[in-house]
Amino acid sequence: MEATPRGSWWGRVLFVDVGTGETREEALDWDAARDFIGGRGLGAYYLFKHLVPGTRPLSPQNMLIFAGGPMSGTSCPGSARAALATKSPQSGLYTFAITGGELGPALKRSGYDVIILTGRAEKPVYVEVGPNGATLRDASHLWGLDTQLTQELIKKERRGEELAITCIGQGGERLVPYACLINERRALGRGGPGAVMGSKNVKALAIKKDGPAAPLADPATYREAAREATAQCRANPFTSGPLKAYGTVSTVAVTVNGGIMPADNWQRMTTVEEGKNLFGDVLREKFLAKDVTSGDPCPSKCSKLTVVREGPYAGAATEGPEYETIYALGTGCGIFDLAPIIEADMMCDLYGIDTMSVGVTIAFAMECYEKGLLTMEDTGGIDLRFGNADAMVKLVRDAAFRQGFGEKIAMGCRELAAEIGRGSEVFAMHTKGVEVGGYDPRGAKGMALVFGCGPRGGCHHAGGYTVQLEFTTPEIDRFADSGKVPIVVMTRNRRAAAAD
Amino acid sequence: MEATPRGSWWGRVLFVDVGTGETREEALDWDAARDFIGGRGLGAYYLFKHLVPGTRPLSPQNMLIFAGGPMSGTSCPGSARAALATKSPQSGLYTFAITGGELGPALKRSGYDVIILTGRAEKPVYVEVGPNGATLRDASHLWGLDTQLTQELIKKERRGEELAITCIGQGGERLVPYACLINERRALGRGGPGAVMGSKNVKALAIKKDGPAAPLADPATYREAAREATAQCRANPFTSGPLKAYGTVSTVAVTVNGGIMPADNWQRMTTVEEGKNLFGDVLREKFLAKDVTSGDPCPSKCSKLTVVREGPYAGAATEGPEYETIYALGTGCGIFDLAPIIEADMMCDLYGIDTMSVGVTIAFAMECYEKGLLTMEDTGGIDLRFGNADAMVKLVRDAAFRQGFGEKIAMGCRELAAEIGRGSEVFAMHTKGVEVGGYDPRGAKGMALVFGCGPRGGCHHAGGYTVQLEFTTPEIDRFADSGKVPIVVMTRNRRAAAAD
Repeated sequence: MEATPRGSWWGRVLFVDVGTGETREEALDWDAARDFIGGRGLGAYYLFKHLVPGTRPLSPQNMLIFAGGPMSGTSCPGSARAALATKSPQSGLYTFAITGGELGPALKRSGYDVIILTGRAEKPVYVEVGPNGATLRDASHLWGLDTQLTQELIKKERRGEELAITCIGQGGERLVPYACLINERRALGRGGPGAVMGSKNVKALAIKKDGPAAPLADPATYREAAREATAQCRANPFTSGPLKAYGTVSTVAVTVNGGIMPADNWQRMTTVEEGKNLFGDVLREKFLAKDVTSGDPCPSKCSKLTVVREGPYAGAATEGPEYETIYALGTGCGIFDLAPIIEADMMCDLYGIDTMSVGVTIAFAMECYEKGLLTMEDTGGIDLRFGNADAMVKLVRDAAFRQGFGEKIAMGCRELAAEIGRGSEVFAMHTKGVEVGGYDPRGAKGMALVFGCGPRGGCHHAGGYTVQLEFTTPEIDRFADSGKVPIVVMTRNRRAAAAD
Repeated sequence: MEATPRGSWWGRVLFVDVGTGETREEALDWDAARDFIGGRGLGAYYLFKHLVPGTRPLSPQNMLIFAGGPMSGTSCPGSARAALATKSPQSGLYTFAITGGELGPALKRSGYDVIILTGRAEKPVYVEVGPNGATLRDASHLWGLDTQLTQELIKKERRGEELAITCIGQGGERLVPYACLINERRALGRGGPGAVMGSKNVKALAIKKDGPAAPLADPATYREAAREATAQCRANPFTSGPLKAYGTVSTVAVTVNGGIMPADNWQRMTTVEEGKNLFGDVLREKFLAKDVTSGDPCPSKCSKLTVVREGPYAGAATEGPEYETIYALGTGCGIFDLAPIIEADMMCDLYGIDTMSVGVTIAFAMECYEKGLLTMEDTGGIDLRFGNADAMVKLVRDAAFRQGFGEKIAMGCRELAAEIGRGSEVFAMHTKGVEVGGYDPRGAKGMALVFGCGPRGGCHHAGGYTVQLEFTTPEIDRFADSGKVPIVVMTRNRRAAAAD
């Protein structure tokens, strides 16, 4: 099939049935590419166009749709983004996930704008995509490996090829409903795309990244605009200030001081005394190894490579933790120490499960335990009190591997609450089956609409992100019960366009 | 300086003073290269030539000498070897270490035959070497990182360069006397070269590996010989049989069945009932991810990439464990389960400490504990009984980081016995301060001479390796008290020449 690239698009969509091995191409729907701008929109378009209603998320008929936007992988700062659309095993609904890392730039160099995986392979495979289409390769020996080793081995085995690899860990293999995909150390995190990939017996998508990028319509003008955007990033007091220094961890001080960072599964808020151990300056002083980008190019380098230098978690290293991880695996579980959070974050990335969902579910189980709805017999001998960092770390691993009491944690909090019953449903912190982000709407009322109406469930992104404006705009009363809708709509649209 | 390469040598030796930053070159001593054949011999030659007698191992005056042999990095199977010579902080004597991986081939492409590091940098640096000499680069941000992350970050930062990186982990930074160097996942393991590197504030040696190799004297003849050697490897029933299938783990069945694999710090031998959980077939069936080479080219692929798939150590992955690691971290500590051994092996490689020395020292401490020479107060609450796998794993980490009771384990068993006293010295299993390998000489008497007279202390290699012949040669009575000297001398010379 011939296609004429134009305006940063290749004009080609690749379908790969991993069950039959058949691939086919079709021309990009140019109208859709214009109307549903960005990888997130385009992914949604193709999912709604092709997915048969009623498809079960873990059935072969579900689709994993990888899509970039027109700016993905260009010289614009923050453009290294890619989106994935699928039907979520957590919510049973449409969902999407977004990542930095190499995936976006690689997509732009793959020769395709959209890559759609369907079917179920009989034995584990990985899918290698280049400008000439897709090849299924045996991944039997990769099954059981973590996300870093998987990337390393594929790169070694395919020496000579420059590949960007997006893969699942043991969590996705075991169909943990909130399993994620990892590329480099970045996650396509929420809603369980890792379980969908695992259900297809696909270990990884490997994309050739050294080809030319889809040509821009007007390279000179674009380059100028990108340069201007970079200059604005450098001049902006947030992206060149707290974001650059502390990444999203800069938010901890804001929400703790504002009294909206949940503790003990939302039974109370984190106090300043507790929260200050988690502030960005502590992360920098005690744990930072290096400022890195979430994906090149970006002048902010908001991602923080951290390492634990002493104590029982000494040696743990991760890219992160981000704000939501500190909330979910930390304060939500009554843990106010970055070391075990870094250890657990590392494990989530290695084994490929979502830090937020596993953390919130552990916090939920802790509340059940403290209320006597779970006993030490249920937990297999784990004293599941709030603040028990060793228990949290152990359960992260056991959830990823679906073993012991981790099998229960792997259900996610909605399903676990349904099993436990006895009123526990009211403190299972999710919407649409997806565990919520770390902002108490009582102190930023817009977030109630964000969590309640967001398209992918309890997400602080997809439904908008009002808390930032509610805290920084003098005209907005964060405690007000009304007037939030325009802010929700505005931030929601902005997030949809910027796809973060 | 001009030098004429000949016969697989560049004819150049590079000296780098990491304190002053000065480098100088001198011509290779061609007579030495011929007389002390191989990287191990050449390293020893230069160490004895240049090191001032009385130099303390961790002083700036000590030297780290990296040397390849004439065959390093050629097409001959098993040739990816490199040697390091230094004065050992464990024995206080000359020692050497040998590794597979990329170091040997990279040395052969570096433009130098021998690279000698001396001095002490004021701040952490890494040393980058290419055909035009050495450059010191800042490594402050790498200090505190494990060996994998260190290699990853240097490669990312020096994108565009093809580098082979040999580095220390946290163990070397903290001057653990048995800290090792790691390149890829292979160790320059014994005698504490990692502590020497750490004492110099050097985090890594990075060698450009994409240049041409030093030219062979007669490439066509060599190629033919290498092809013949490869064919012999493939035809050999050991290298294409048990070694290929199980790596050095094939030895476990031999020594367990022969009653010479130590258990419980050599108080008894491993029984068949216990040992069969550690046999090569168990490793393959339950833990193997992939057969890999210890260094290309090699038809045997005796190195085993393993992963724990379930249980409390699920997710742990390592290249190994080798026989000696199974003995030291396993049977010697009364642990007959590969999962915690894989976890501990992974940690040793990440944090850069020798599996054998740390394992034997933990086993020694366990015997002290069971005999009442150490109490739970001494161990910081650790119930240090034989067979306590969690305690072993914890102490490996704590030894690498020199924290808690790990500070004692980090001393090595000779020094720890000297501190504990009360007769414990007699069951501290070392010679010359270096912990011994896993073969009870009572069932292979030659090994007594190997351990007792080896140049680097309690090593099963450097002093010879009689046990193999003692078990496989019908004419040799392994229990005999005499007649062992010729076997020791022969295997010792063979090992010196083959440098493994």
